[in-house]
Amino acid sequence: MTHLHPDRLFPASEPAQTIARQLYAEVQGLPLISPHGHTDPAWFANNARFSDPASLFLTPDHYVLRMLRSRGLSYDDLGVPRKDGGPVASGRDAWRLFAANYHLFAGTPSKTWVDHSLMAAFGIEEELSAQTADAIYDRIDAALATPDLLPRAILDSAKVEVIATTEFALDTLLHHQKMKADGYLGRVRTTYRPDDVTDPSRPAIAENLQKFGELAGEDITRWAGLINAHRNRRDYFRQHGAVATDHGVPTANTADLPLVEKQALLDRVLAGSHTAEDAELFRAQMLTEMALLAVEDGMVMQIHAGSRRNTDPLLLAERGTDLGADIPGTTDYVNGLRALLARCGNEPNLRVIMFVLDETTYARELAPMAGYWPSLMIGPPWWFHDSPQGIRRYLDQVVETAGFYNLAGFNDDTRALLSIPARHDVWRREVCGFLGRWVGENRLSRSSATDIAKHLSYQAAKDAYRIK
Amino acid sequence: MTHLHPDRLFPASEPAQTIARQLYAEVQGLPLISPHGHTDPAWFANNARFSDPASLFLTPDHYVLRMLRSRGLSYDDLGVPRKDGGPVASGRDAWRLFAANYHLFAGTPSKTWVDHSLMAAFGIEEELSAQTADAIYDRIDAALATPDLLPRAILDSAKVEVIATTEFALDTLLHHQKMKADGYLGRVRTTYRPDDVTDPSRPAIAENLQKFGELAGEDITRWAGLINAHRNRRDYFRQHGAVATDHGVPTANTADLPLVEKQALLDRVLAGSHTAEDAELFRAQMLTEMALLAVEDGMVMQIHAGSRRNTDPLLLAERGTDLGADIPGTTDYVNGLRALLARCGNEPNLRVIMFVLDETTYARELAPMAGYWPSLMIGPPWWFHDSPQGIRRYLDQVVETAGFYNLAGFNDDTRALLSIPARHDVWRREVCGFLGRWVGENRLSRSSATDIAKHLSYQAAKDAYRIK
Amino acid sequence: MTHLHPDRLFPASEPAQTIARQLYAEVQGLPLISPHGHTDPAWFANNARFSDPASLFLTPDHYVLRMLRSRGLSYDDLGVPRKDGGPVASGRDAWRLFAANYHLFAGTPSKTWVDHSLMAAFGIEEELSAQTADAIYDRIDAALATPDLLPRAILDSAKVEVIATTEFALDTLLHHQKMKADGYLGRVRTTYRPDDVTDPSRPAIAENLQKFGELAGEDITRWAGLINAHRNRRDYFRQHGAVATDHGVPTANTADLPLVEKQALLDRVLAGSHTAEDAELFRAQMLTEMALLAVEDGMVMQIHAGSRRNTDPLLLAERGTDLGADIPGTTDYVNGLRALLARCGNEPNLRVIMFVLDETTYARELAPMAGYWPSLMIGPPWWFHDSPQGIRRYLDQVVETAGFYNLAGFNDDTRALLSIPARHDVWRREVCGFLGRWVGENRLSRSSATDIAKHLSYQAAKDAYRIK
Repeated sequence: MTHLHPDRLFPASEPAQTIARQLYAEVQGLPLISPHGHTDPAWFANNARFSDPASLFLTPDHYVLRMLRSRGLSYDDLGVPRKDGGPVASGRDAWRLFAANYHLFAGTPSKTWVDHSLMAAFGIEEELSAQTADAIYDRIDAALATPDLLPRAILDSAKVEVIATTEFALDTLLHHQKMKADGYLGRVRTTYRPDDVTDPSRPAIAENLQKFGELAGEDITRWAGLINAHRNRRDYFRQHGAVATDHGVPTANTADLPLVEKQALLDRVLAGSHTAEDAELFRAQMLTEMALLAVEDGMVMQIHAGSRRNTDPLLLAERGTDLGADIPGTTDYVNGLRALLARCGNEPNLRVIMFVLDETTYARELAPMAGYWPSLMIGPPWWFHDSPQGIRRYLDQVVETAGFYNLAGFNDDTRALLSIPARHDVWRREVCGFLGRWVGENRLSRSSATDIAKHLSYQAAKDAYRIK
Repeated sequence: MTHLHPDRLFPASEPAQTIARQLYAEVQGLPLISPHGHTDPAWFANNARFSDPASLFLTPDHYVLRMLRSRGLSYDDLGVPRKDGGPVASGRDAWRLFAANYHLFAGTPSKTWVDHSLMAAFGIEEELSAQTADAIYDRIDAALATPDLLPRAILDSAKVEVIATTEFALDTLLHHQKMKADGYLGRVRTTYRPDDVTDPSRPAIAENLQKFGELAGEDITRWAGLINAHRNRRDYFRQHGAVATDHGVPTANTADLPLVEKQALLDRVLAGSHTAEDAELFRAQMLTEMALLAVEDGMVMQIHAGSRRNTDPLLLAERGTDLGADIPGTTDYVNGLRALLARCGNEPNLRVIMFVLDETTYARELAPMAGYWPSLMIGPPWWFHDSPQGIRRYLDQVVETAGFYNLAGFNDDTRALLSIPARHDVWRREVCGFLGRWVGENRLSRSSATDIAKHLSYQAAKDAYRIK
Repeated sequence: MTHLHPDRLFPASEPAQTIARQLYAEVQGLPLISPHGHTDPAWFANNARFSDPASLFLTPDHYVLRMLRSRGLSYDDLGVPRKDGGPVASGRDAWRLFAANYHLFAGTPSKTWVDHSLMAAFGIEEELSAQTADAIYDRIDAALATPDLLPRAILDSAKVEVIATTEFALDTLLHHQKMKADGYLGRVRTTYRPDDVTDPSRPAIAENLQKFGELAGEDITRWAGLINAHRNRRDYFRQHGAVATDHGVPTANTADLPLVEKQALLDRVLAGSHTAEDAELFRAQMLTEMALLAVEDGMVMQIHAGSRRNTDPLLLAERGTDLGADIPGTTDYVNGLRALLARCGNEPNLRVIMFVLDETTYARELAPMAGYWPSLMIGPPWWFHDSPQGIRRYLDQVVETAGFYNLAGFNDDTRALLSIPARHDVWRREVCGFLGRWVGENRLSRSSATDIAKHLSYQAAKDAYRIK
C-alpha cells in the first residue's frame, strides 16, 4: 500500500534514500514532545471513551471539512453543527460522504494523517472509499469502546511524553486541577493564551477584562492593575503545568508606549470607544508587556502571527469559528518586533518562538533575526505548512542562516488527538530526508546529521520550551 | 538533439524518470483544451495563410522581443513597427538578428517553445543560429504556403478540441459571427473581457462607456443601466461561444458599495473627474458586479491580477502596448477578494478562477482560499511562470493545501498559435514529472497519479470552464 | 572528511553528479574576478602580515559572531571591541569559545567558508572543536608570519585577477594612491560609495556634505554644485581604478523631481530640518542623479537595496555597526525604479546591477525587469543568500525569465580575505550543479552548459562591470 510504504516521503534516489532511512531508524522510536496544541484537556482529565468515528476524525478537523466544502459539499451534509440548532447529517452519513470523496485528498497532508491514524490506532490498511466506508466506520466504532483507545492509553501507545493544551486567560483550568490532584499534571500541561483579554477586536473584550480583574483580584481599569492581573494568572497557569504563553495575533506588531498613552488606550478599550487602530495598538503593546512578564517569570512566549480570521461572514454567523475560513496574509516580523526587541530583546531570560504563515519571511526575516537575537527562536512550520513540502521549504530557507540549533523542534498544533503521532512522523521523515540529501551532497557529516536528526525529533522541543 | 530529447524535462534520476515517462505516455496524445488565450479570431474565421516567418515567430512574441532588447538589440532592428511609421528592419533581417542571438535563450521557455514549434510544424531539427538562419527562414516560408499550415489545419494537427479567444466588450465579434455562420463556432469561442469599459485609467473610458451604452441599448449613465448593458453584452458573447469572462486588473481588490456611492463614482468617471483612487474603486466594484452577473448567467470569471503595465513610457509612446514592459508586482488576494466573497462567495453558480504573477500568494493565499471556498479555483501558472520551474514552484506550493481538484488545468494564454502544443506539452511533462517524483517517494499511488495526470492534462480545463 | 569532499555540493544522484563534476573541472581553475567587496585597501597597499587568527577569522566576521551571539554567547567573551573601551576577551580565549561551539555552524555557509579557508590557506583538515582549538590557533598564527600569507601573496595564490574595495565619497583614497604609485592599481580598484553624502538619515549628513563640497571645490548648497561635486569625486575615484559605484539603500525607491523641489529638499537637509520622508526622497532623487552621471561617465551602478540596519539599538550604542543586527525587509523594485528608468532606462551607456535581500522579487520583479531593460542586470545572491540553497533559489527563479546572460556573475562581497576563494568555489560548484541537473533533464545541451559555466564563473563579472 503506497500510503503506508515504510520508505514514504524519503528521497526517491540513492544515496539520499538509504541515509534517510538509517537516520529515521534512530529517531522513529523517540518519545513525542508536544509543546503546543489544541487537544481537549477534558479527554485526559476524564479519560472517557470517544463517542464515534465522525466526531473523532471529521467534525473537528477543519483541514478535512474545508477541502470537502471547497468541492461543493455542504457543511450540513458533513454534520457540522449549526448555531440555529437546525438538522445536520448523522455521523455515519457524514462519514460516508467523506469516504466517497476521499480521492480529493490525494497529495494532501490530511490524507497522510488519516491513513496513518487508521493504521496506527486501528490496524486499518484499506483505503477509505465509498466501498469501504461502512466497514471502516464499524471497525473504528468498535475499537473506541476498548481500553486501548481511551485518551490516556492513546498517549501511552503514541509515546507522548509531554503534551500541552491551550487555555484562554479566563479559563479556570478545572481539568488541569483534576489532573494535578490525580498526579497526571506534568505529562499534560496548560498554556496561557490571553487573546480573550488582549484583543480588543473581540466583541466581549470589556466584559472579559472585567471578569479577568475579578478572577485575579486586581483593578484592571489601571494599567498597572491589568499587568498585575496577567502576572497573577500566569502564575496560576504555571501552577497547572504551563511553561509557555501563546499569542494568536493578526500581525507581529509590537509597541512600547509611555504609561499615559497606555492608560488612555485602556480607557478607550474599556469604554468600547476604541478604533481598529486602537485595537492593533493595544495588541501590539500587550505583546511587549507579555515579553516583560516573560523576562520576570521565564515563561516561553509563542507568537502565532498572520492569520486573517473568519473571512467568510456567512459561515461565522451560521456555525462559528475555526471551520476553515481563516486565511494567511503577509506578515512583517522585522518591523513588527522592533519595539519589543529594543525594549528587552537582549534579556537573558526572554525566549520568543516565532511562528508564521507567510513563508516569504523564513529566509528574509525569521532566520536572520533568530540568527542574531539570543531571545528568538523559529517555530516549526505552522498550519497549512506542516506538510512534507512545507517542511522542505522551511528547512531550505531557515537552516543556512539560523543554523539547526535556533529551531524549536516540532509542534503538532492539532485538535485531532490521533493525528499527533502521524504529524510527528512526517516531521521526522522530512528531517531525515533533508539531512539525507545534504549528507548525500557531502555537505554535512553522517555524525552531525545523526545528532541533528535526534535533536530536532525530540530534545529541541524540550529545550526550546524549557521543559524539565 | 538535446532540445528535442524524448525525455526532456522529466526527472533525471530513477525511479521518478520511468514513472514520469509512463504517465506521459498516457496523456501525450490527449486533445488540447485551450480555454484562455489571445490568438486572432480572424485566423480561424478566414483560414488564410500566415504571411512570413518573422511575423509568425518574432514580431508578435513579446517574450522573444524583450529578451533580445534586454541585451541591447533595438526594436527597429527587430522589425517592431513604430507608431510614427518610421522604417524598421525587414522580416528576413530581423530573423537573422534573432537567429544570431539565439544562444541568449538558453534555459528559457521561449527556446523550448520555438524549438518545439520548428520541429512539430516544420520538421526542423537544426538549432537556430546565424549559420542556419536563412535556410530555416526559407523552409518555414515555403511551408506556410501549404494547406497543412493554414490556421484550421494547425488546430487539427495539434488536436485542439476547443480554443477561446479574448475580445473586449466593445468588440462586435465579426469573426465569431462568421464562424457561427459556417458552423466552426464552438471549437473556437470568444471570451468577454470588459476592461475597456471597467478600467477608468484608460484615457478613452468615457467615450468607451458611451459606445457601450449604444451597443447595448442601455442608459449607462445610471448604475442599473450600466449593469444591464453588461448583462446584454455577456449574453451576446455567450451566443458566440463564450463560457467565461476575463478581467485584467492591476490588483485583486473588490468592493461592495451602496448604490448611491456607486452612482456618484460612475458620475465622476463619466465626467472625467475621477482620481486614481476612484479608478481603483471603480475596478473593484465592477469585479463584484461581474461576480453577481456570473451568479445569474453561469459564466466563469477569470481574474488576472497583478501586472504593472507599460512601465516604459518611451516604448509606449514609440510603439504601443504588449511589447515586454509589463512587470509583475505584489498582489493581495486575501484582502482583495474579501468584499466579493462576502457578497456572493457561497453562491453555487459562482466560479472564479484566480491567476497571479506574485508566486508568494500560491501557498499563502490562493491554495487556502481555493481549499475553502466552493466558488474559487486556482488558475495555472501565468505569463512568466508557465515555464518548467514555474510549474514546479506552483505545484509544490498549491497542491498540499488545495489538492489537485481545485486546479483549473492548463491555459496556454498565448498570441503565438504554433506555441500552443509546445506549451501544453511542457505542462503535461511537468505534471508527469511532479507526479513521478511523488510516486517515487511513495506518497501517491500509481493509479491516483494516472487519474490526476489525465485530469490535469485535459478534463480539468473542461470542467473548470464548464465546457460541454 | 565530509567538509572537504571533492564532490561537495554537487547533486547526489546521477547523471547530474557526473555532469556537474565535469563542468566544474573546466571552471575550477579560472582566475577570480571580485568586482564588489569590503576588504581593507590598507592590506594591499602595505602588504603587512595579519596580526592573529581571531582578528582574521572571528572578530570581523559578522556571520560568525551573530550565530554565536544567537545561542547566548556574549560579544565580550568573543572579543568584540566595546565603544567604552571596556575589557573583552583575548584573541585566544575568543577563539577557544568559537571552536567549542563550532557545531552550531553545521549546515551554514560560514562553516563551508571557514573549513575551506583553513584547508586552502593553512593546509588544516581537522575539524575545529574544543579539542583542536589551540593546535589550530597556533598553526594559523605561525603561518601568518610567513611570506605566503601576506595580503598580496594571498591574492596570488587565490588567482584573484581583479579585486574592488569600497570607499565612501569622503575617502581620500590614500591606500589606492600608494598602489597607483607602485603599479598595483588595476588589480586592486576602489568603488565609489556615496552613502555618506546621499543618506540624510546619517547624523553627520550636513557636516559630511560641507566636507564633500570642500573636497570637490564645489558649492554644494546649490543643487548643480552638489551634482558637480559628485561628478568630480567620481572622476577622482575612476583615476584610482573605480569602474563602479555602489549604493546601500533601505529601499529601491527613486525620484525625478523638478529643480525647485530638489533645491528645497537640499536646503532642508543642510539645515537639519528634514523629516524621515525627506530623507527617503533625497536618497531616491540621488539614485536618479547617480544614474544620470553614470550615463555621462559609464561607471556601473550597483544598488544594494533592502537592509534594515542596526535593529538592535543596544548593540549600536555599545559596539557600533556591522555586527549582525541588520535584517532584510521587503523590497519593491518595480515601483521603486520607475522614476529612474523613465528618465534614463533606455540610455545605452547606463548599467544598473540590482541586488536584493528579498528573494520574492527574483521571479516577480528582477528577472522580468532585467529581461526587458537593456540597462538592468541582476546581481548575484547577496549577504544571507550567497549560500548553496540561496544560489539554487536564485538560479531557479531568475534564469527562465532573464536568461543566463542578464546575470552579473558572482560577487563575494566580503570583509574576510581568506573566504574569497571559498565563496567563489561555492558559486562555481552550485552553477555546475544547477547546469548538471538541467543537462540531466535534457533541457540544455552539454556545450551550452559548458559555455554558461565558464561565463558565470569568470567573464560575466568582467563584462558586467566593464573591466578591461
